[in-house]
Order: sequence, then structure tokens, then C-alpha cells
Amino acid sequence: MKVTVHRRAHFNAAHRLFNPEFSAEENEAEFGKCNNLNFHGHNYELIASVKGEIDQKTGYVFDAKELKKIIREEVEDRYDHKNLNLDTDDFKNLNPTAENIVVIIWNHLRKRLPKNLELKVTLYETPRNFVDYDGE
Amino acid sequence: MKVTVHRRAHFNAAHRLFNPEFSAEENEAEFGKCNNLNFHGHNYELIASVKGEIDQKTGYVFDAKELKKIIREEVEDRYDHKNLNLDTDDFKNLNPTAENIVVIIWNHLRKRLPKNLELKVTLYETPRNFVDYDGE
Amino acid sequence: MKVTVHRRAHFNAAHRLFNPEFSAEENEAEFGKCNNLNFHGHNYELIASVKGEIDQKTGYVFDAKELKKIIREEVEDRYDHKNLNLDTDDFKNLNPTAENIVVIIWNHLRKRLPKNLELKVTLYETPRNFVDYDGE
Amino acid sequence: MKVTVHRRAHFNAAHRLFNPEFSAEENEAEFGKCNNLNFHGHNYELIASVKGEIDQKTGYVFDAKELKKIIREEVEDRYDHKNLNLDTDDFKNLNPTAENIVVIIWNHLRKRLPKNLELKVTLYETPRNFVDYDGE
Amino acid sequence: MKVTVHRRAHFNAAHRLFNPEFSAEENEAEFGKCNNLNFHGHNYELIASVKGEIDQKTGYVFDAKELKKIIREEVEDRYDHKNLNLDTDDFKNLNPTAENIVVIIWNHLRKRLPKNLELKVTLYETPRNFVDYDGE
Amino acid sequence: MKVTVHRRAHFNAAHRLFNPEFSAEENEAEFGKCNNLNFHGHNYELIASVKGEIDQKTGYVFDAKELKKIIREEVEDRYDHKNLNLDTDDFKNLNPTAENIVVIIWNHLRKRLPKNLELKVTLYETPRNFVDYDGE
Repeated sequence: MKVTVHRRAHFNAAHRLFNPEFSAEENEAEFGKCNNLNFHGHNYELIASVKGEIDQKTGYVFDAKELKKIIREEVEDRYDHKNLNLDTDDFKNLNPTAENIVVIIWNHLRKRLPKNLELKVTLYETPRNFVDYDGE
Repeated sequence: MKVTVHRRAHFNAAHRLFNPEFSAEENEAEFGKCNNLNFHGHNYELIASVKGEIDQKTGYVFDAKELKKIIREEVEDRYDHKNLNLDTDDFKNLNPTAENIVVIIWNHLRKRLPKNLELKVTLYETPRNFVDYDGE
Repeated sequence: MKVTVHRRAHFNAAHRLFNPEFSAEENEAEFGKCNNLNFHGHNYELIASVKGEIDQKTGYVFDAKELKKIIREEVEDRYDHKNLNLDTDDFKNLNPTAENIVVIIWNHLRKRLPKNLELKVTLYETPRNFVDYDGE
Repeated sequence: MKVTVHRRAHFNAAHRLFNPEFSAEENEAEFGKCNNLNFHGHNYELIASVKGEIDQKTGYVFDAKELKKIIREEVEDRYDHKNLNLDTDDFKNLNPTAENIVVIIWNHLRKRLPKNLELKVTLYETPRNFVDYDGE
Repeated sequence: MKVTVHRRAHFNAAHRLFNPEFSAEENEAEFGKCNNLNFHGHNYELIASVKGEIDQKTGYVFDAKELKKIIREEVEDRYDHKNLNLDTDDFKNLNPTAENIVVIIWNHLRKRLPKNLELKVTLYETPRNFVDYDGE
Repeated sequence: MKVTVHRRAHFNAAHRLFNPEFSAEENEAEFGKCNNLNFHGHNYELIASVKGEIDQKTGYVFDAKELKKIIREEVEDRYDHKNLNLDTDDFKNLNPTAENIVVIIWNHLRKRLPKNLELKVTLYETPRNFVDYDGE
């Protein structure tokens, strides 16, 4: 009998999409406006979803206060009000597409959560564009 | 060929989180502000999702008007404008965490729906904290 | 390692629910207000979700700009500011319930997407009534 | 010391924009897709806002339950699941633009409210297009 | 040249509507479900709006970080996860209708803000019921 | 008899808050995380509101299609997927706070609109922080 607990968080960041092995023309063709040399940015919205058995003593699957704290330490402190390309180790050599960001965040959160909990992360780049990843 | 039909509903309720077997200090440590003796409350948002084959005569999986009625009778009439701990049978002896509430609601709705339909319930305690349960 | 990419779109359309083999009384009983002879309408919101491997060169599963274009051509150009019953081939002989619409849209999008990508479509008829279909 | 009380409601309707004195070409040029002969539709969202003194006995400016009832009788019962052009008296000879609809709704609600209350009505045709009117 | 700066915040609280001078029947008739003896609750959403001249050195009307801090101290610390009737001084003898709450919050915030700034407070009891007050 | 017509739009941009006349310490103290040297970013949401008489022939105050076009040319083409500090003339020498951005946008839109229409602009930097300006 497993329940999934979801916690929503957010961070604001700048980024630029490009592949250093592409020519300027190829980057423009592939990434369009997102390739702008001087960066653009987003209000990223994040949902971390953990699935597991309800603890009979507390009635919790995983304490939402603790989940909030882990998200703050692993995601918000790393990325909020940062330039993903220039200010983070994660995206110095990795193109910060929504797909790549959601996988990296999943990896950071996975390390902090008990092994018996399943994890899925959803990342909204805009209200119309979003991605999710569950580790499989 | 199965389609899932979702219906959103809501109810406003007061609750308090605590375990009567815990000391006051343990309850405070575990449940924090949610342990407030005089209760606090939420605008709960609920999504009931039923999955099944489309009926060829009506084009419906399950009539949304009927689903709305079942949710009103099983959930809204039971919990809306109530104190979950004091005014309901369900949570007199069960800690009304979001996890426990979603399982109880799933059980109430499950009894009213045809066996061939799969059911999942999502419950928002706040826009940032929510849970879901599909009976497995 | 698969990520799901979601793209949201919308269209405004009129429709009427009825089964030509039903009597007027049966249609009224089954479809209620949705059976109104002169039609009513909705702001439909659509989410197309495609799941697949991340392309290592681009960091994309599927270019959201391309997904947006396919949705525009296959869904918005077909249905936006139209009467689903009278102005489209798809629903001339098929009751335009949310369930039937989401299956038809899934079929249109499926043909335009690479075979290795999984597809799910979610359709909001109103913020409280929505459906999804993944082809199974 | 005046407080404004807002109540949100909604209705789903079909409509078509045109001026019978315009040629087909003029209607097309002026109203574009909204001129579609067979109608299209919207999920209209409505906010009725009434401003006045707080009643010292009840703590209410105007009972939200009563406001909800008036909106249902004057707006929802008139327009919900209707074709505004064909099924209503209000728009048989008046082009159902958002601007005209909001003025008509304001007039219907104004007659039912105490004279000492100020009224403003906001009408969302889509989340991106909306209008408001306060009688001045 | 004045700009208005808005900051949104939230708190979760229990309350009960009643007038101690009314009979039980009168309270039931006036306040309905909101009169429930054991309380119910809401996720209150608050918008504090301050209007004034832009400071030429900072480009701010009023620092949003400072406004956030004042709202936390004056509103969230007072009401979040509390029973408004039992746990607060403000509503021990004042019926906690949305109208009365918004006026009390306005008074608390007004004292903390510079005299040259205008203040308006909007309070959502639910997404469908909300009030605002600007001190006049 | 005046109605206000609102049109919502959006753009994604990077920015950095600082005053070149401040020391690094003063900029840090005043602007905190928003002073990050390498920029951060937002999904800005914009509402342009124009108030005027309803045209009796069209039923419009101002054609929403035309308003959409003006916003695209004056706001989206200028700022979308740009770095406000580096890529625009407007904020090369003006701190891109929400307050300053909303005034600049108001000026751009004002020039394109008929004199008899009143204009107000609302700008969301995040869902919790927003500003508005009406030219007074």
C-alpha cells in the first residue's frame, strides 16, 4: 500500500543552450532564441515526488518538512539566482536543457533519500514546457 | 484502448496532526506547527481519476456528472466545513495526514465505482504539498 | 534513461454531445446540458507528452519547438475556433466527448512522431474535467 | 471603511462574432476566426465584486452565499451550456464580444443588489483575454 | 509617477463564524456550514500592495525582501497554523469573516510601512471567495 | 460607459540588479541574490489593460488581435530570450527592477495606442512578486 508524496519548490536562473562542438550556425539552427549569447532566464518550478509505504506511527510516507529541506539544500541553494552555465559545476560542460537539468536534480535528490522510496522529478521551464524523470 | 477521466473537487476542513501514544514533546518534534492543539485548516483540492474503456454508445468512460455526484456524497458531504479529528468517524482514531486522508477517500470512492474501472486519487493539502494513491 | 517532455497548447471550440441513434429523451437523459441543440463551447487545454532517450548532442528528447509546430498543424489548425460537430471531419460521425477527442488527437500526433518516442495526451475540457490517453 | 467582496463563477457557452450590417468580407476582416459561421466556444470565468461597509452584526459586506445564488440565477442559468447568439434574448441582436457580455451581466446583477453596494464585473473569455466593467 | 508593488504570501488557519449575541438558530441561518462548532479551515492567500514613487538609486518603490519580512512577522507568525478564534488576540471577540480579517491585516501592515506609501490588502479565503481593503 | 480590455503576454529574460555608483558591498546589501554578477532570469508575465468606450459597430473597445500584435512588437520582440542589461537599449543604463521595467513597457505601449484609451500595465516577475503602473 504505497502513497506518493509531492513537494513543489522553485528557483530563478539564467541559462544559454549551445553545444561547443557545433558551429555558430548549427547552434542557432538547433537552439534558436535559447542560444542567445548573453543568456536568458526562467522561473523554474520543481515537483519532487517520493513513493513509499505509510509509516504507521506518524502517518507520513516521508516528512514534507524534511523533503522541503533536502530540496532547498540540493536544488535551491545550488541554482537559485544563478547562471546555470557559469555559476554551477553541474552545467559547465553539460547543455542546461530542461531534460539535462531534471536528470541532474534527480541524481542530487536520489542520494539524500532512503533507498526504499521511489523518486520522480518534474521540472517546469515555463508553464507550457516541462519535463519529468523517474530514474528509469 | 483505455482512457482516464479526471474530476476535480474541493472541501475546506480543520485538522490537527498528532499520535496519542507520543508525548507532547514527541508530537511537537514530529509534527511541528501541524500539531497545534486548537487545529488549523486547509482548502483541500481532490482529483478522482478513473480509467477504463470508452462506451461506444455514449463516448464516455464514466459519466462525469455521475462521478461528480459520487465525490459529493462520499467526500464533500463527509468532510466539507468539518473538523476531521472531531467531526468524522474516519479520523477519530487515525492521524489525518494527507497520506491517510487520500487512502481513506480512495476506499470510499472504490466501493461506489464499477469493478472494471481503475481508480487513482490525488489530494492537495496546499498547492505545494500533495499526495496520490492508486490502491497498490 | 528516459525523460518525458511535455508541451501545453490550447484551442477554443463549440460542440454538442448526442448519439443520433438515441431518442431526444435518451440524449437529454444521458448528456444533459451538453446536449443543447445549438451547441456550447470550451477553452480546451492540451498537453502532449513524449518520452524517450536524451540526444547527447542536443540535450533534447524532442525539440519543443518542433513539438509545438506539430501540435499547431495537427490540433490547433484543425479545431481552433471551430464547431467540432459541423466543421471537422473527425466528429461528423463521432460524438465529441472529451474521451473521443483525446483518442483522435493522440492518433493525429502519433503519426507525426518518431516511432521510438512514447506518447500520452491530456485534454482539459474545463479545469475540473479532463482526460488522458497513452495508446494502450 | 469599505471592503470589496469578490465571488468567482463560470459558464461554458458557444458564440460567433459578427455584425449583420457588415459584408462577409468585412466580418472576416474585423472578427477573423471568431466569425466562424458554425460558432466556437469558451469556458467563461466571471468575478463579481461588490464594495460596501461591513455589517457589524455579521461581519459580512454581503453574504457570499447570497452572491453565489444571484450569479447562478442571473448568469449561469441564462448562459451556461448555451449558444449566446441563438439561445439567449440578450445577444439575439447584440454582438457577443466580451465587452458587450460584461456590460449585460453587470446590468443583470446590478438590479439584484442593494443600491448602497458598488459593483464591478470581470469576465475572462480565455486566461489571456479578459475585460471588466464597473458601470461608469 | 507612482508604481504599485505586490507581494503574495499565505497561511493556513482554522476558524468558525458566529456572533455570540445570536441564538444557535440565528447563527446557523446566517453562517451555515461556516458556523460548524468544531471549526473548519482554509489555505489563505494574501497580496499586500504598496504604491509609491520609485527610488532613483535602487529602482525600488519598496524592497520586496523587506515587504516579505514584514508580512511574515505581522501576518504569518500571528496566524499560520493557528485557530483564529482561539489562538489569536485579534479574533477572540471579532467574527473572523474574510472582511474582518482583511481589515485587521491592513491595520497591522499599515503600522510597519512608511507614511508616504499607499497600502491595499487582498485576501483569498478560497480561489472563488476573496476580499480587498485599501483603508478608505 | 467604459470597459477595460486586458491582454496577457509573456517573455523570458535574464537580468542583474545593481547600481554602478554603489560599491560591491552596497550592491550586495541592497540587491542580495539579485545582484549575482552572472545574471539570473525570469518568466515575466505581462498584462496590458486598455480602457475606453465600446465601438458600437464592432462591440470592441480595442481589437484584442491588434493589442496582441502591439505587445509582440513592442515587448516580446524587444525582451524575449534576451539579457535585459546587455542586449537591450532600455536597460543599458537603467537598473532592470520590476518597477523600472513596467514603466518602460508602459511608455512603449502608450505610443502605439489611441490617445482616448487609458493604459495600465501589470508585470509579474514571479507569481509572488508583481508590479503595476498606469502612467500617473
